[in-house]
Amino acid sequence: MSHSERTLLGPGPSNPYPEVQEAAARPLLGHLDPEFLQVLDSVTEGLRAVFGTSNTLTFPVSGTGSAGMEAAFVNVTAPEDVVVVGVNGLFGERMCDVAGRCGATVVRVEAPWGTPLDPEAVLRAHPAPSVIAVVHAETSTGVRNDVAAIAAGKGDALLLADCVTSLGGTPVALDAWGVDLAYSATQKCLGVPPGLAPFSASERAEAALLARPRSWYLDLQQIRRYVVGEGARAYHHTAPTAMIVMLDAALRRIREEGLDEVWRRHEECGRSLQDGLEAMGLTLFAQQGHRLPQLTSVWVPEARLPDGLDEAAVRRLLLDRFGVEIGGGVGPFAGRVWRIGCMGHAARPRTVALLLAALEEVLT
Amino acid sequence: MSHSERTLLGPGPSNPYPEVQEAAARPLLGHLDPEFLQVLDSVTEGLRAVFGTSNTLTFPVSGTGSAGMEAAFVNVTAPEDVVVVGVNGLFGERMCDVAGRCGATVVRVEAPWGTPLDPEAVLRAHPAPSVIAVVHAETSTGVRNDVAAIAAGKGDALLLADCVTSLGGTPVALDAWGVDLAYSATQKCLGVPPGLAPFSASERAEAALLARPRSWYLDLQQIRRYVVGEGARAYHHTAPTAMIVMLDAALRRIREEGLDEVWRRHEECGRSLQDGLEAMGLTLFAQQGHRLPQLTSVWVPEARLPDGLDEAAVRRLLLDRFGVEIGGGVGPFAGRVWRIGCMGHAARPRTVALLLAALEEVLT
Repeated sequence: MSHSERTLLGPGPSNPYPEVQEAAARPLLGHLDPEFLQVLDSVTEGLRAVFGTSNTLTFPVSGTGSAGMEAAFVNVTAPEDVVVVGVNGLFGERMCDVAGRCGATVVRVEAPWGTPLDPEAVLRAHPAPSVIAVVHAETSTGVRNDVAAIAAGKGDALLLADCVTSLGGTPVALDAWGVDLAYSATQKCLGVPPGLAPFSASERAEAALLARPRSWYLDLQQIRRYVVGEGARAYHHTAPTAMIVMLDAALRRIREEGLDEVWRRHEECGRSLQDGLEAMGLTLFAQQGHRLPQLTSVWVPEARLPDGLDEAAVRRLLLDRFGVEIGGGVGPFAGRVWRIGCMGHAARPRTVALLLAALEEVLT
Repeated sequence: MSHSERTLLGPGPSNPYPEVQEAAARPLLGHLDPEFLQVLDSVTEGLRAVFGTSNTLTFPVSGTGSAGMEAAFVNVTAPEDVVVVGVNGLFGERMCDVAGRCGATVVRVEAPWGTPLDPEAVLRAHPAPSVIAVVHAETSTGVRNDVAAIAAGKGDALLLADCVTSLGGTPVALDAWGVDLAYSATQKCLGVPPGLAPFSASERAEAALLARPRSWYLDLQQIRRYVVGEGARAYHHTAPTAMIVMLDAALRRIREEGLDEVWRRHEECGRSLQDGLEAMGLTLFAQQGHRLPQLTSVWVPEARLPDGLDEAAVRRLLLDRFGVEIGGGVGPFAGRVWRIGCMGHAARPRTVALLLAALEEVLT
């Protein structure tokens, strides 16, 4: 049993860094092993660096990015709390659903998919929300929202930011911006398989944690006693040790390459991909000036699809012929947009060149 | 960066099967890749075999065993529902906490730690509970509870069973017993790193699923549209593909060895370990006739600890000198009991021999 080698240029997962593949082969450690606890401390330090924070409560949630989203909301949202959510894509929609299940009164502030949120509109939406929530990098559209501008006007609210597709790819600066709760995912720009949700909470957020949130599994005060290395480690749930060892390898790799250089590499590859697509005559979906380099959305060129093939068949052809995975659109843009990621280890000139060449060959 | 090789004989994680280590090195697949979806289908088939069920909704939850527990309760428990919970260890206690956070009225039926639940007492506890919940193999004590006897008298209630430490080590037969909701974990007898919670729900449980459970991440009706291969796969959250590929390798390994043979191997190793500990003059903790082979609890022999070392220091000595991890006690038995697992790949005569020899050398 083996399987094909893929160049993963969809919206995630991306190809892991080689150091992560190497770490995957190491012998397994227990969650209370002193050697593993050193790895966990190293991961929390590495996450603070990429998140741009000194928050004590910084660690990987034992689930995928959406578990990070749920952990963020469920620990600070009591029934009837007012939560303002910026919605300009699928993950803003998801935030409304998650906050609603916590019993919150959700105030939606919308912008059309493909355009950024208006920070002023988000800040004007309610006079005294307990939480303002926005997606930094909308994976569904390839748009960057201005988290810094929204955080600057948050007032007494907690600012909650989805950094799933931004972390490790483009600048994130929780402390400088004033973000109180942030989560990400390992399978995007961090270059690790899916399964963990890097997470960080400010002191203000910690002070607002519910004593007994609806979720036992995601109860931050209980998890804190294990992940924060102050004295004895209290068992809460068994940490996914193999995944955390892989995340450590990625964070060390990013530190060695240099965070500025990693961001530059993502920026360069994304721009080069977007220029290349436009040079082929394709039309980018996300509004100019607000495009993410690590996640490019482009209109499906209907007139140039090969005879008898729809856009899904073309993606399948790229996969079967070149081993290249790209993503389709979601929500109202399913079947109409492609999403192409250049994230983590896949953010390289050679993957951009491969994708453009393969697309050129497939399209008529 | 590497780390030490361990023989993992604690309460989990156990050492992965070699086939799992091999699978960890394979190239990563995306969660919608046709090759990955074949792996997912293979995993659901393999899980049905070890769970002893034909339940359609059988899949790995994207979290550790406690996420499986939360998924089981949160999808069927509405506020004011009566939930009867058998409590004879830490994980029965945890069930009460999780059910309570769902708003349930929890009826506890206790038995002393180290002894099994009385099935009649569990069944008599309430005339019409909506859920009866029990732990099959109590990892905190090494005791097996009689799930079959409790399931046989469940009436109109749903029977919910924690199979975290039993699955893949001792017989589990959801359909024959009449269990409606069951969850497990990968890092015990299945021989996979921690990070997934195998899960299964009967048709009766599916009919009782809440339309909008408190958890978005663990919403079974939404997850079903992705994991059950009937037509298009609806994206819910990004499946932890690398972990699922590892679980597939373990389930194939178990199928090749034969489930009966795997159970026999666990039984043989556990009995041999327990006989060996008693031959050394140590006293087993769990009541005779109700002991799990895969998880042995033994009183710490205070009089035989080396001068100046407490039980935790002895465990540390086993780790440093022999690379052998065993577990301490929890709850009221912290510092008083050791827990020794022989699970998955670690259920072998050579690990039993190593543990007994190492302990013999360390104790006075």
